[in-house]
Amino acid sequence: MSLRFTVLQRSGLCNARTGQVTTPHGMFETPAFMPVGTRASVKGVLPAMLASTGAQICLANTYHLLLRPGPDIIERAGGLHRFMGWHAPILTDSGGYQAFSMADLNRVDDEGVLFRSVVDGSWVHLSPERAIRVQNQLGADIIMAFDDCPAAEPADTLATPTHRPDPQGSDPRPLRALRRDRIDGRAAHAQRLRQANERTVRWLERCKAAHARASDQALFGIIQGGTDLEQRTWSAQRVCAIELPGYAIGGVAVGEPSDQIARVVAHTAPLMPEDRPRYLMGVGYERDLLAAVRAGVDMFDCVLPTRNGRNANAFTPTGQIRLRNAVYADDRRPIESGCDCAACAGTGASHGPGAGGFSRDYLRHLFLAGEMLGPILVTLHNLRYFQRFMARIRRAVADDDWAGLEREYPVVARSGPTNPG
Amino acid sequence: MSLRFTVLQRSGLCNARTGQVTTPHGMFETPAFMPVGTRASVKGVLPAMLASTGAQICLANTYHLLLRPGPDIIERAGGLHRFMGWHAPILTDSGGYQAFSMADLNRVDDEGVLFRSVVDGSWVHLSPERAIRVQNQLGADIIMAFDDCPAAEPADTLATPTHRPDPQGSDPRPLRALRRDRIDGRAAHAQRLRQANERTVRWLERCKAAHARASDQALFGIIQGGTDLEQRTWSAQRVCAIELPGYAIGGVAVGEPSDQIARVVAHTAPLMPEDRPRYLMGVGYERDLLAAVRAGVDMFDCVLPTRNGRNANAFTPTGQIRLRNAVYADDRRPIESGCDCAACAGTGASHGPGAGGFSRDYLRHLFLAGEMLGPILVTLHNLRYFQRFMARIRRAVADDDWAGLEREYPVVARSGPTNPG
Repeated sequence: MSLRFTVLQRSGLCNARTGQVTTPHGMFETPAFMPVGTRASVKGVLPAMLASTGAQICLANTYHLLLRPGPDIIERAGGLHRFMGWHAPILTDSGGYQAFSMADLNRVDDEGVLFRSVVDGSWVHLSPERAIRVQNQLGADIIMAFDDCPAAEPADTLATPTHRPDPQGSDPRPLRALRRDRIDGRAAHAQRLRQANERTVRWLERCKAAHARASDQALFGIIQGGTDLEQRTWSAQRVCAIELPGYAIGGVAVGEPSDQIARVVAHTAPLMPEDRPRYLMGVGYERDLLAAVRAGVDMFDCVLPTRNGRNANAFTPTGQIRLRNAVYADDRRPIESGCDCAACAGTGASHGPGAGGFSRDYLRHLFLAGEMLGPILVTLHNLRYFQRFMARIRRAVADDDWAGLEREYPVVARSGPTNPG
Repeated sequence: MSLRFTVLQRSGLCNARTGQVTTPHGMFETPAFMPVGTRASVKGVLPAMLASTGAQICLANTYHLLLRPGPDIIERAGGLHRFMGWHAPILTDSGGYQAFSMADLNRVDDEGVLFRSVVDGSWVHLSPERAIRVQNQLGADIIMAFDDCPAAEPADTLATPTHRPDPQGSDPRPLRALRRDRIDGRAAHAQRLRQANERTVRWLERCKAAHARASDQALFGIIQGGTDLEQRTWSAQRVCAIELPGYAIGGVAVGEPSDQIARVVAHTAPLMPEDRPRYLMGVGYERDLLAAVRAGVDMFDCVLPTRNGRNANAFTPTGQIRLRNAVYADDRRPIESGCDCAACAGTGASHGPGAGGFSRDYLRHLFLAGEMLGPILVTLHNLRYFQRFMARIRRAVADDDWAGLEREYPVVARSGPTNPG
């Protein structure tokens, strides 16, 4: 068995649970937050430091590693764990999402996806078989099915127009024609969603058949369906009918508002098997994580702590702070008082008399001076912040004290745009 | 007393010695190599990691910190040690070298130097008094005198011309006139050197008078004189006649070949007091360090390990290797077998089964993918390499086994260009 999932505690008030997932490279606690190491590296963070933030599993991206350095080099190096010096569990995505969203896409059909490499412009073909073969070479503990990921619904089909957007402009058609266009656009998108949904199930069967390392790599299936709950139900039933060690919710957090994420997850998670880990892909902010945990989700990944950290945005329980801001020029407090990260608690400082944390005035200086240490320190803080938040969520499950968590993290109650920064 | 220097061992074969320098922030062993943290950060390296490379003292640049974030902010933060989280000894240069070499220079006279800030274009004036005042605010354990650093001799005055460089060109003057120009140029440069030398001594008196923290900051004087040994003698006599806790050789490693560095240092170091630490500024490669230690030098700083590390050039005892090179694409060896750094020994990796060092194939991948972790890991290796080299030198002094050192570090015997990379 490639993976063992044990539920430890269940909330009496919602679908939340805590658990443990055991893999060939060790155990991780759930609900779990997985930092993203796209190109076999969490940007700016040594694996030993990543472990010290409390991360027990990390993610790498098949698409990027397929293009560079290529799976053959990583396989010859002894697999991804040895290659990147991370000897705890790893999850790889299938490359599908990036192939559909990042690439110069040429052809999508039942065979797979043909796209141009962003590295050297060469043509690359990904199919369910190829995506699994590459992930077998990389050797992650958890690998993801190759799914058909259509682009999110175009914004201009979301609302029925009530006026001509550009009455003086180049589009002389009457409002009636514009409305017809929108309706056609929405219908076309719905059809594409259905097609992708059906193809994802057919591809999942092929992924499972192609998987050559089922004894030490756990293949997860992915539920699609966009924001259409009927499509989600259909997908969950078909995907979860295929026996696998775990299942994921995909196609979420592709630009929709936070309440839509919560609505889709609250609908879909209960449709997934109780005894398998549930993974919500690419989510997200604190309140998105909390809502998903309460719906019964166990695993998360997101670039927010690392990407925002590199941009000088530091997470705190009351919202993000932008360390480039002039108000921090003379601020001798750490990012978050009481945080035990390398930046706030000063474990990244040298020992000596008066050793303490790195303060906001110094961090601001590092960013304004373009010093690498700024992104490094704020990334370390953000990663630790997310791990502390997940630990607090696990405690809330055990105690069923959700109000206590919300008091400690006012940010989860924040309305309006998800990103307060 | 701001600084105590104890000589522990002396070579019987040359002027080399080992010792200890004790400062208010602790002790460092000599001969010492000081990594450079220009803007209050050794690029990409947490202070705790810097300490783990064996560094016992680091350097920061007054010029850069004066312009950004400014000495007032650092003073209010409790000084440089607290600001940057490095609680071991720190040395700051005076800003003179950068003001003369990097700035849009407007005026140099006995008062000081007027130049434009590279940060915001504003006019900045540095004088001996101001340079010391700023360093008093920064609070380093060792501070440097403000010296007059003329530009190195222009290359076109170094040789007497034997032919017209551009016979078809716009300079129609006969060879005789060109020769006269060169001679005039060399004479002008020699005069500028003498002027700078004399001014440096006058400024040193003013630096000493302006120094407000002599009880906890050790002011070092700087010997100038270019490659002119008579000028060096004059400068050493005048500078060392002013009672100070230490002295430095400046104006070296400004582009001249390795044998010229060795010649100037071999001449100058013995002119400096036996009982004070001798600091050779801005040097250098392994053979430059070794030659200077044998001449009696105790302290060094250089950007080589950090700058070259960021450019994927890794130091080894047989010379630098360029990790971007395609020959390393499938090379599963560490940078240097037997090295105990975070990269080679894998102490930067997470714990776990099969944990080992980061190999050249991975490092190459990181550089080609533009991942920060590449510069970080190679910087950590290079910093540790330089500290190991200095420890080996200290052992050679104790054993007087210089041949053994040269066998272990073939790179020190290399002739030709200093940089083999």
